[in-house]
Amino acid sequence: MSRALPQVEPDPSLPRRVTVYEVGPRDGLQNESGVVPAAVKAEFVRRLLAAGLETVETTSFVDPRWVPQLADAEEVLALLGDAGRGPRRPVLVPNLRGLDRALAAGVGAVAIFGSATETFARRNLNRSVEESVGMFAPVVERARAEGLWVRGYVSMCFGDPWEGPVPVAQVVDVCRRLMDLGCDQLSLGDTIGVGTVGHVHRLLEALAAAGIGPEQVGVHFHDTYGQALANTLAALRDGVSVVDASTGGLGGCPFAKSATGNLATEDLVWALDGAGVETGLDLDALVATSSWMAEQLGRPSPSRVVTALTGG
Amino acid sequence: MSRALPQVEPDPSLPRRVTVYEVGPRDGLQNESGVVPAAVKAEFVRRLLAAGLETVETTSFVDPRWVPQLADAEEVLALLGDAGRGPRRPVLVPNLRGLDRALAAGVGAVAIFGSATETFARRNLNRSVEESVGMFAPVVERARAEGLWVRGYVSMCFGDPWEGPVPVAQVVDVCRRLMDLGCDQLSLGDTIGVGTVGHVHRLLEALAAAGIGPEQVGVHFHDTYGQALANTLAALRDGVSVVDASTGGLGGCPFAKSATGNLATEDLVWALDGAGVETGLDLDALVATSSWMAEQLGRPSPSRVVTALTGG
Repeated sequence: MSRALPQVEPDPSLPRRVTVYEVGPRDGLQNESGVVPAAVKAEFVRRLLAAGLETVETTSFVDPRWVPQLADAEEVLALLGDAGRGPRRPVLVPNLRGLDRALAAGVGAVAIFGSATETFARRNLNRSVEESVGMFAPVVERARAEGLWVRGYVSMCFGDPWEGPVPVAQVVDVCRRLMDLGCDQLSLGDTIGVGTVGHVHRLLEALAAAGIGPEQVGVHFHDTYGQALANTLAALRDGVSVVDASTGGLGGCPFAKSATGNLATEDLVWALDGAGVETGLDLDALVATSSWMAEQLGRPSPSRVVTALTGG
Repeated sequence: MSRALPQVEPDPSLPRRVTVYEVGPRDGLQNESGVVPAAVKAEFVRRLLAAGLETVETTSFVDPRWVPQLADAEEVLALLGDAGRGPRRPVLVPNLRGLDRALAAGVGAVAIFGSATETFARRNLNRSVEESVGMFAPVVERARAEGLWVRGYVSMCFGDPWEGPVPVAQVVDVCRRLMDLGCDQLSLGDTIGVGTVGHVHRLLEALAAAGIGPEQVGVHFHDTYGQALANTLAALRDGVSVVDASTGGLGGCPFAKSATGNLATEDLVWALDGAGVETGLDLDALVATSSWMAEQLGRPSPSRVVTALTGG
């Protein structure tokens, strides 16, 4: 048999180039039950960079009591050296204390993690949406003063496990506040994976009407209900060109008892390669990286492309 | 937590109504390693009908030596009685002998199974594409003379495991021949799941240019590379309104060592429900049917919606 590859047939409704924002080392590994050694994490990032990824979120400076999986953030960054620095190696910072640690480690970009819903803000951040924006304000201000690039995650943009479907206007309001703080980019998260293509279109339309165009946002879909790739392509048709994905599909959502988590970078790249959309990524190298990481974690990758190409 | 449901936000680029052509009892079960008792198969079809499915392919009259899983076609249809008859309960027939058996069982619709590639035609049908069309000609002629509805499957429309990517013109040629025989509908199959959205668009465009409009075709995607739902929605945007799917994602492709097979009906319905597209289907009843069938088969459903909603 010949090696299976998608035939290149450009889809005129998609952008010419897409930036994959790789979240595996942070969003993926923080949801793993076991703790991965710092040296393995650093090697994971190095392999991702070698596969062509230009934007990789490397780790998180959340309090280690809450996310013990990433308690070694300083060590990982020290191991990465210059490869872990610069405006395209963001780290997650929850507050000023996290930002201090990140700055001390020499990072060039940070991400904050907000919520579109009150219930999730209270459960995840222990404060209201209003209070959380107030907490982020000095973080973004100081980060910008230090010359850092700043991303704002907005979680629960489509549905919330306690509140149900989330009104588009409510999401737009939180997005507007985070942009007003000075974020360079937002990431619209479907944290529980319930969104569908029409909903994606309506949200992007409403954001654009509020002055937040598709060039200012990335999209972050979870595959819990099998919708991640379809929703991503819907967003690309509306002009978005930054897509969050996790190599090997690492990461999950603690609210859904499911093995499926983030959109797998490989499944996204298969789609984009076939549509002639440039990503700069080497699919074989990504698959090899996933397979290597799956060995470290002792479980198979949930990526369908990885499974198909490696006979898993 | 509230019951997760997609928010209804119509996608203006999708059709108002989609017909799901359910292939689980035939395409799904023929790829299972174990043999399911006829009574369970009949009950599976009954539950699918109760969930709102109007078109269900019930079984196959292929020689039992090749597909022992469906050797009980007559028995299944006898158990179904009137519920297994009529123009919306097709059965697969490979040749005149299969058609004779199907007619004796009182069916009202049949499907033939062709190939867009020479290699797969030789491996699956033991003859060239030309010879296989010649074999189908009297089958379609007699079926039509008996007043049956006739569907023509075209497999390997996007890639072939031996030949690689399949030229669009080659697929159009086979489709044209099958329509000329008198098929009422074609099903464009991505048997190994390698297709992507641009390729789907180009094929439908070329078919339309050859006089085969989107109202004459259904699409049949496999999720081997995670593309099934995205490709299906791409086809719907081009005017297709018949989609093959398998409840619970039953069925696989013998050429890819992967648990993933047909597009899961539930994952499709989640997407369509969210986009306000009518299907007439009851998602809860489908999920309950999948869970019941998974118990019969002794393995979990690969559908992501089923996994998410049942905590599998």
